Amino acid sequence: MPKVTLMPDDVTIDVAQGENLLRAAMMADVRITASCGGDGTCGKCRVVVTDGAVDTRPTSRLTEAQVSEGYVLACTCSVTGDITIAVPPESRPGAVPVPARSGRILNPVLSLDEQAARMPEKQAARDLCKVLVTVSEPDHADNASDLARVSHAMRRLHHVKEMEVTLPALRELPGALRQGEWTVTALVTEPSRGAALVTGFQPGDTTDRQYAVAVDVGTTTIEVAIVDLVSRVTLGQASEYNGQVDLGDDVITRIIASTREGGLERLQALVLHTISTLVTCLLEQTGVAVEDVVAYVAAGNTVMTHLLLGVTPEAIRTSPYVPAAAAFPWIDASDLGLPGSAATRFITLPCPASWLGGDIVSGVVAAGIPWSDKLTLFIDIGTNGEIVLGDKDFLVACSCSAGPAFEGGGITHGMRAAEGAIEQVRIDPETLEPMVLTIGNAKPLGICGSGLIDSVAELFLCGAIDRRGKFDTAQPPRIRPGEHGLEYVLVCADESGTGRDIVLTETDIENLMRAKAAIFAGINILVESLDLTLDAIEEIVVAGGFGHYLDLERVMALGMLPELPAKRFVFLGNSSLSGARLVAESRQMLEKAAKVAEAIAYLELSVNAGFMEMYLSSLFLPHTDLSLFPNTEELLAQRLREKVVS
Amino acid sequence: MPKVTLMPDDVTIDVAQGENLLRAAMMADVRITASCGGDGTCGKCRVVVTDGAVDTRPTSRLTEAQVSEGYVLACTCSVTGDITIAVPPESRPGAVPVPARSGRILNPVLSLDEQAARMPEKQAARDLCKVLVTVSEPDHADNASDLARVSHAMRRLHHVKEMEVTLPALRELPGALRQGEWTVTALVTEPSRGAALVTGFQPGDTTDRQYAVAVDVGTTTIEVAIVDLVSRVTLGQASEYNGQVDLGDDVITRIIASTREGGLERLQALVLHTISTLVTCLLEQTGVAVEDVVAYVAAGNTVMTHLLLGVTPEAIRTSPYVPAAAAFPWIDASDLGLPGSAATRFITLPCPASWLGGDIVSGVVAAGIPWSDKLTLFIDIGTNGEIVLGDKDFLVACSCSAGPAFEGGGITHGMRAAEGAIEQVRIDPETLEPMVLTIGNAKPLGICGSGLIDSVAELFLCGAIDRRGKFDTAQPPRIRPGEHGLEYVLVCADESGTGRDIVLTETDIENLMRAKAAIFAGINILVESLDLTLDAIEEIVVAGGFGHYLDLERVMALGMLPELPAKRFVFLGNSSLSGARLVAESRQMLEKAAKVAEAIAYLELSVNAGFMEMYLSSLFLPHTDLSLFPNTEELLAQRLREKVVS
Repeated sequence: MPKVTLMPDDVTIDVAQGENLLRAAMMADVRITASCGGDGTCGKCRVVVTDGAVDTRPTSRLTEAQVSEGYVLACTCSVTGDITIAVPPESRPGAVPVPARSGRILNPVLSLDEQAARMPEKQAARDLCKVLVTVSEPDHADNASDLARVSHAMRRLHHVKEMEVTLPALRELPGALRQGEWTVTALVTEPSRGAALVTGFQPGDTTDRQYAVAVDVGTTTIEVAIVDLVSRVTLGQASEYNGQVDLGDDVITRIIASTREGGLERLQALVLHTISTLVTCLLEQTGVAVEDVVAYVAAGNTVMTHLLLGVTPEAIRTSPYVPAAAAFPWIDASDLGLPGSAATRFITLPCPASWLGGDIVSGVVAAGIPWSDKLTLFIDIGTNGEIVLGDKDFLVACSCSAGPAFEGGGITHGMRAAEGAIEQVRIDPETLEPMVLTIGNAKPLGICGSGLIDSVAELFLCGAIDRRGKFDTAQPPRIRPGEHGLEYVLVCADESGTGRDIVLTETDIENLMRAKAAIFAGINILVESLDLTLDAIEEIVVAGGFGHYLDLERVMALGMLPELPAKRFVFLGNSSLSGARLVAESRQMLEKAAKVAEAIAYLELSVNAGFMEMYLSSLFLPHTDLSLFPNTEELLAQRLREKVVS
Repeated sequence: MPKVTLMPDDVTIDVAQGENLLRAAMMADVRITASCGGDGTCGKCRVVVTDGAVDTRPTSRLTEAQVSEGYVLACTCSVTGDITIAVPPESRPGAVPVPARSGRILNPVLSLDEQAARMPEKQAARDLCKVLVTVSEPDHADNASDLARVSHAMRRLHHVKEMEVTLPALRELPGALRQGEWTVTALVTEPSRGAALVTGFQPGDTTDRQYAVAVDVGTTTIEVAIVDLVSRVTLGQASEYNGQVDLGDDVITRIIASTREGGLERLQALVLHTISTLVTCLLEQTGVAVEDVVAYVAAGNTVMTHLLLGVTPEAIRTSPYVPAAAAFPWIDASDLGLPGSAATRFITLPCPASWLGGDIVSGVVAAGIPWSDKLTLFIDIGTNGEIVLGDKDFLVACSCSAGPAFEGGGITHGMRAAEGAIEQVRIDPETLEPMVLTIGNAKPLGICGSGLIDSVAELFLCGAIDRRGKFDTAQPPRIRPGEHGLEYVLVCADESGTGRDIVLTETDIENLMRAKAAIFAGINILVESLDLTLDAIEEIVVAGGFGHYLDLERVMALGMLPELPAKRFVFLGNSSLSGARLVAESRQMLEKAAKVAEAIAYLELSVNAGFMEMYLSSLFLPHTDLSLFPNTEELLAQRLREKVVS
């Protein structure tokens, strides 16, 4: 890993090959003025490369003289080797440099490959859906049917005890066998009951082409990945708002909408349209042929899963909160009208309870908890905050209504973690000038979950908002009166991609605080319910579609996650999607997911006496009880000292 | 059973309650002039009731004086008790009465109930498709999903180890459970792999309403029955020509048609249209609701089964004659667009070989052979003649191309066994005047299989045709020159329902002789192949859609079946349909059918050296070797003597 040394702070960090230089500075806590989101247009993030070289691109924002002096725009540079850069005073947002702390733990969200590397069963044989079968040519002495011939070969070659075929597969068989000169590729899925079910036949050997579609069916966001099952490479990934969002932000509103005349059908059609559009687009991008898509694996919360399959979720809404099913039948993708062949199967991850869905089962699998010796706390931050505590021997879960803030919902300029979303923010404590970085280094369009966390934590650590999340006082131009009280201007209209100011209001902050309070309270109640203390947690896995980077220090400063040694934390990103991908690759994973769903115990917070109390105590930054957050307390004290000094 | 005594012949026979009096006379071999098929319009079959009473209806064909003297039209009378009737000389077709032989064995085709009574497993518990499930109402202590609740109850109440549901069933479950106040009826089918598959849920207890559709998919005729699975009563039955007949009479022509562009789809659509029309009509007639049809069970020959399911039968046509499959997946009736609910399953009987189909497997089951200790010869006379020899320990089969003559195909005025089809014929040896009875006692429209057998046998026994099946000489008005040589006028235009003469030509007779020769040769070769003699056969089961009555003496006189003691013969009618009905009623039967299909050995006649020789020897009436038919020889000699006497 290349080393980046930043002067005059004299801090050195290891970064990934090709890392953006502005992001490297941000991760090292070295502040550089940057207001265009990393787009290269504001021209403010000028630094001088004093040692080593970077990959950069020409810019009109630097004069020839500056370029010859070694000036570059940090946001347009990729780090390719060890370098030293100097941040000139004009590129610093404040007059007084904030002392950077080397030794900070940087917790980027793990890539899919890094996640896979964590899997204890990664050595397990992949279970591919295509099986090569060569049969002897029939003659008078042996004129058994085509199907009998293939069944026999499957038994002999692949130890398949009992084979069944679908009618569409049977229709393909005679042609495929003869076209393939008695060699065919069978598309096999194995339903839970154990027999091999062949859903299609292709002539000859097509086993090198087999792909799956993993789908995370979120209440707010649908994310889809196309996985090459042979190479285990994710060929493409895309996300879009769930088409249902127009019919309500949260699952309760969706359930109500589903009970109206034609509502269930409409909601189903909307989510299927979103998935279909994403898949069609990804197939085109990746060049994967639709007939080589062998399966979909979808993970969603219980309500989303019901709606996706067109099953009424009505009874989930009212006490005693009963879903129609916890495990769902395997169907054909064509039953849902999704892109695929007649052989393409559609598998849905089981949903253990009304408020504990397949997304969590998928995430628990992706986090490797069912194989882990470590007591692990798993937190999936989506529209709901679901928390699971356990290891290979037990799993207990709870769900707290965090609201959609982390996915950009209910936030004035919130958006999901897509290109143009502000995902990292630093704010100069003196000038309150922000340093913003967007996903894809594009012009800022809005704020995603991680950007929101960063912004509020920074405003708090700067003293711009108090422990109740209220602005202290107007401080133009950044803190100004807005339509509903004071607001912080994160990006000015002339630098945003929307042509409007991107601001953060007190209501936005309040929404975030409610969400973080619910999560922190949930964690505490869950741990207490097992007579454990927070310190007993050996690993904390944080999942959610909040962005690509989460700053642990800031997450803790908000009081969202307990202050535990940073090395215990792992950030998984969209673990629901990762789990779906793993399940598509391996039947062991699918079986494990089924077992997780059966084994997981559910703690109902709504009837828990301690939860509301803990929630109310958590509606402060970081908490009413500061002693729970000693590091943040120390950080605040330090900032205060700096302020006094300045 | 009422006794009917016929004078002056002084012959008494037992007949079924309600039997038609003309048919009773025919069965007793007492000839009465009757040319309108039993319609009551020709007014020729006048008899006098001398003792007892009959049910009859008013007719303009009898004067008041005649009625007061006890005259009735035999064809309009039902026998309700013991009676004696006198046949006056004017009602006799010839001057010289043919001596009736009492003690003749009458072999009417067994009714479905009589067939069921033969079944060794008739005491076996029925396996109904609807299962009543009552679950406890969910509460906070137990808020498992609807599906988990039902699965648990199925396990507890019905010992179902593993239960799966289809998606349409799952969609129905929440509503059905609540509407039924926690009692639902599950529609369960059990695929071959053993787990219970629930395809639908209905609110409350609907277990008293469960029906199946049994379908015989014949090359020429489709026959459909609706069965009440609770009472085991066949509520309705109907038949129609297979819609595919326009694309070819036999399976070979159909296979060729299926290989043309769009041909397979067209053939499938045609047969499905025929089935659909018949079922829709029967549902209306019987008042059975479409949602209570739990399953279809279809039996057809291998080619018909492939075409029905839209699977190409192409490789069946050419050596080495390979079908696509011998066993077919269970599907939903909706997959084929047939009347039913989303829960209605469609089960196809297995086809052991290209020329040995599910119709024969079904027939073998209906004949009870897999449970029988007796060495049984099973003959299904359809478009092909299939012959099975065996008992509970072994089964060997062959197929001989009999052609469609027995179903009315290739016969100038041939028709299938439907209303208006001449099914019984007696011909006066002197005048050649016929006595004809039609199905439904309607005006004659044509000749069905049993009528054809009767006609040709009678013409032969009367000496009107020789042993080669050729007319001896013209004998107006009944034997006259036609378009292609001599022909026999069975019904004159003014008495037929078509307004045209119904005739039998030498070509018709030739076609029948080819068919009967193929069957007789097949029987012999099959028996010989096992080193057995014909006499070793303990039971001969004759099946086929030829009509409701087969006259054994005449069948033997044709040389179609071997001369064996009459009591060894059983006539089953459409055994393919009967077997399908049994399979619909009981899973044991379904399993037995699968075992029969696996166990049955197939003897290929086309490569058998002895077959062609035996076939050619059988192209005579009854056979070149008269010693094989001693009874017929004796009968012929007797007739000759009578002729000489007269």
